[in-house]
Amino acid sequence: MTDLARRGRAPTPEFIAGNGLINRRALLGSGLAVAGALATGATATGAAAEPLKEDPWGLEFGQITPALQTPSPFEKAVVRTLSNPEGELRNSHARTPHHLLNGTVTPNSLHFSINHCGIPNIDPAQHKLVIHGMVRQPLEFTLDTLSRYPLVTRMHFLECAGNSAPMFSNEPMQITAQALHGLASNSEWTGVPLSVLLDEAGIDARAKWLIAEGADAQHLDRSIPVKKAYDDALVVVYQNGERLMPGNGYPMRLLVPGYQGNMNVKFLRRLKAVDQPAMSMFETKTYSQLLPGGKTWRFHFLMEVKSFITHPSLGHNLKDRGFYAISGVAYSGAGRISKVMVSADGGKSWGEAALQGPVHDKAFTRFIMPWRWDGQPAVLVSRAWDEAGNAQPMRAEFVAARGQTSKPLTSPLGFPNQHYNSTTSWAVDGKGEIKHVYV
Amino acid sequence: MTDLARRGRAPTPEFIAGNGLINRRALLGSGLAVAGALATGATATGAAAEPLKEDPWGLEFGQITPALQTPSPFEKAVVRTLSNPEGELRNSHARTPHHLLNGTVTPNSLHFSINHCGIPNIDPAQHKLVIHGMVRQPLEFTLDTLSRYPLVTRMHFLECAGNSAPMFSNEPMQITAQALHGLASNSEWTGVPLSVLLDEAGIDARAKWLIAEGADAQHLDRSIPVKKAYDDALVVVYQNGERLMPGNGYPMRLLVPGYQGNMNVKFLRRLKAVDQPAMSMFETKTYSQLLPGGKTWRFHFLMEVKSFITHPSLGHNLKDRGFYAISGVAYSGAGRISKVMVSADGGKSWGEAALQGPVHDKAFTRFIMPWRWDGQPAVLVSRAWDEAGNAQPMRAEFVAARGQTSKPLTSPLGFPNQHYNSTTSWAVDGKGEIKHVYV
Repeated sequence: MTDLARRGRAPTPEFIAGNGLINRRALLGSGLAVAGALATGATATGAAAEPLKEDPWGLEFGQITPALQTPSPFEKAVVRTLSNPEGELRNSHARTPHHLLNGTVTPNSLHFSINHCGIPNIDPAQHKLVIHGMVRQPLEFTLDTLSRYPLVTRMHFLECAGNSAPMFSNEPMQITAQALHGLASNSEWTGVPLSVLLDEAGIDARAKWLIAEGADAQHLDRSIPVKKAYDDALVVVYQNGERLMPGNGYPMRLLVPGYQGNMNVKFLRRLKAVDQPAMSMFETKTYSQLLPGGKTWRFHFLMEVKSFITHPSLGHNLKDRGFYAISGVAYSGAGRISKVMVSADGGKSWGEAALQGPVHDKAFTRFIMPWRWDGQPAVLVSRAWDEAGNAQPMRAEFVAARGQTSKPLTSPLGFPNQHYNSTTSWAVDGKGEIKHVYV
Repeated sequence: MTDLARRGRAPTPEFIAGNGLINRRALLGSGLAVAGALATGATATGAAAEPLKEDPWGLEFGQITPALQTPSPFEKAVVRTLSNPEGELRNSHARTPHHLLNGTVTPNSLHFSINHCGIPNIDPAQHKLVIHGMVRQPLEFTLDTLSRYPLVTRMHFLECAGNSAPMFSNEPMQITAQALHGLASNSEWTGVPLSVLLDEAGIDARAKWLIAEGADAQHLDRSIPVKKAYDDALVVVYQNGERLMPGNGYPMRLLVPGYQGNMNVKFLRRLKAVDQPAMSMFETKTYSQLLPGGKTWRFHFLMEVKSFITHPSLGHNLKDRGFYAISGVAYSGAGRISKVMVSADGGKSWGEAALQGPVHDKAFTRFIMPWRWDGQPAVLVSRAWDEAGNAQPMRAEFVAARGQTSKPLTSPLGFPNQHYNSTTSWAVDGKGEIKHVYV
């Protein structure tokens, strides 16, 4: 309960870094300092008159309640952007509109998906998951039998290793956070711990890998370390409370939290315990990232610590001077986010952002930084740290280690296009227009 | 990491209460004891043969990736059930299918809704929220200006005070958990703390109530205690990451966590600070619950501690003997869930269920109880406690205090039909068929 006697004051914000960053303590308690910042800004549009005007929707009976709700027609821009909208016989990407969302959960309708052979329409009564290979007792599961197990529920992000590939461009591309980073999303996943199923099958102690295979026409296969399977992997049967949607693996998928998206095999139909990895196409070709020295990464699975600002970002031009909340998401495949620093002057000075709790392991964490824009040019950047001590690299450091290219999108092979986890910077000009820049 | 040497053993489960309840410790660590229970059950359907059979969806290119994903056609039963599907000029209820969901989040498409005058199609560029009355500076907000504030994100349940009204029937109705309890759901809400807006408006210390009013044709209004507004109320602008759906209050709604659903005014268009409650229709008539002695409750807002089993429940007949996970949701308007006890013998003996963490304040908490069904009749019951020390009442105690009726649905006024928070019991017969019973 706020001290009522203190209401209505408008103290000067405590600025902690250049270009108007405000101490995150302003967000605690009653938010008085922020309110003060707002009252001097343009947020409040003036005194309200009575009687209130009547809008047309206040004068007539509304629409019929549907069995499945859908978004307002006024939100029709809030959709995934598609790389293959006509369903040509190639892969198809759908990207999450980060700049139009908030909070931490990604709705299932907007969760990113990548499918290489279209989306199979699987009958769950026919689909089976087999666990076999180096096990004492091969097992076969249906969606019904798997759903009888004790299920665990956890919040985790999922990210394609190729997310943010446009950031390898040697010139900053003028595209939204959705186009840059939309191949990452965050859900509440419910499934059976893989450890339970492997224990039941009696996996051989010499089995070091599981070959996970999907039921789609590609039978996409990846090798999963048994150690990771026992650590925190799930066979997922619900996402955000409901059954998986078809593009995300219905009726069941593998989840290997924090590892590259492609390993989280969808439409999971078998797990074969083996003592050597499969050396499948995706692990030896697609996800063997080329490094500047000419070598490639082998079995580089972890999605590294990363953050990006979603609000404001390209596409949200600032109309008025005054108070804004800078906000974005941070996540790491190595654990929980421990800290996010934000700069409004392109990295010359930094302030620590507030983290929206609870901070989950290997999950989106929203960060918030109060900011007063004085109408002068500013460059907004975020940088995250995880509990394992990893820092999101600054761009110069990252490019030195990993390279950049003039062809980040057209020629994925032979150019760096994976595991981008450096910073993203948004420049605000004097008119409030936002551009993507490198700092 | 599991001790590999221990894999494959099948220890006898540790039974802790009648009719096969298993110690929840079986769910910890590697889940070995549960695996043992499963291996002796019918879950594993036998050894898997190679080569695997090819299903039709493994032989052809799949479907086009859509901009907004939707559920599989095989999940068409997973919808809200509607009380007014033709949109007659009366209220309209849509109930969440708890028996078909899992985890803790309710997807927005399936979140319950009740609207009294249909669903308004509000243009967010025209809609305004006014804060006025006993304030120093009346304020007016648009969705854009509200969205510039620092937003907080929290998981909370929302429940209609009339949820579970069929449980007041003096004979148990043979209807699903959706029909019994579907007017409660759980979401990640993102919005502006109401305390921040009231501070900015400079609310008068003599103002004890806020009259919250919606923009729908009814202009539904409720009186909200200023104390609650400062405690944890939000003006919500996102639900589960995206903008609110129209039936849930687009473009903005009030959230008063743990208070009856009707107070969480949707399409929020004004908050008027006053020193007396409005005595509006919903607070003086609809939500003045009649008590057995002839008195009624006045301003009884809190949704009390409650739980119900969703899996298995009516509609899920058990096909095989053996291992099952009994699972359901528990929640309380008074705080966090501290404990859920489960019985398989109609309340004669109880075992403590595992709680899926993190346990949020005033939010659905999923509980899980491992169980081995031996094919004999059983009666499954859950009972919850909250951190404030409140226990979910057993039915006899509840009915003595609150009454029951032969007309729970047809005659809501003059009969008890609100704030039901007693236990729900599911009887399993020798064939595995599940009925609703009172114990």
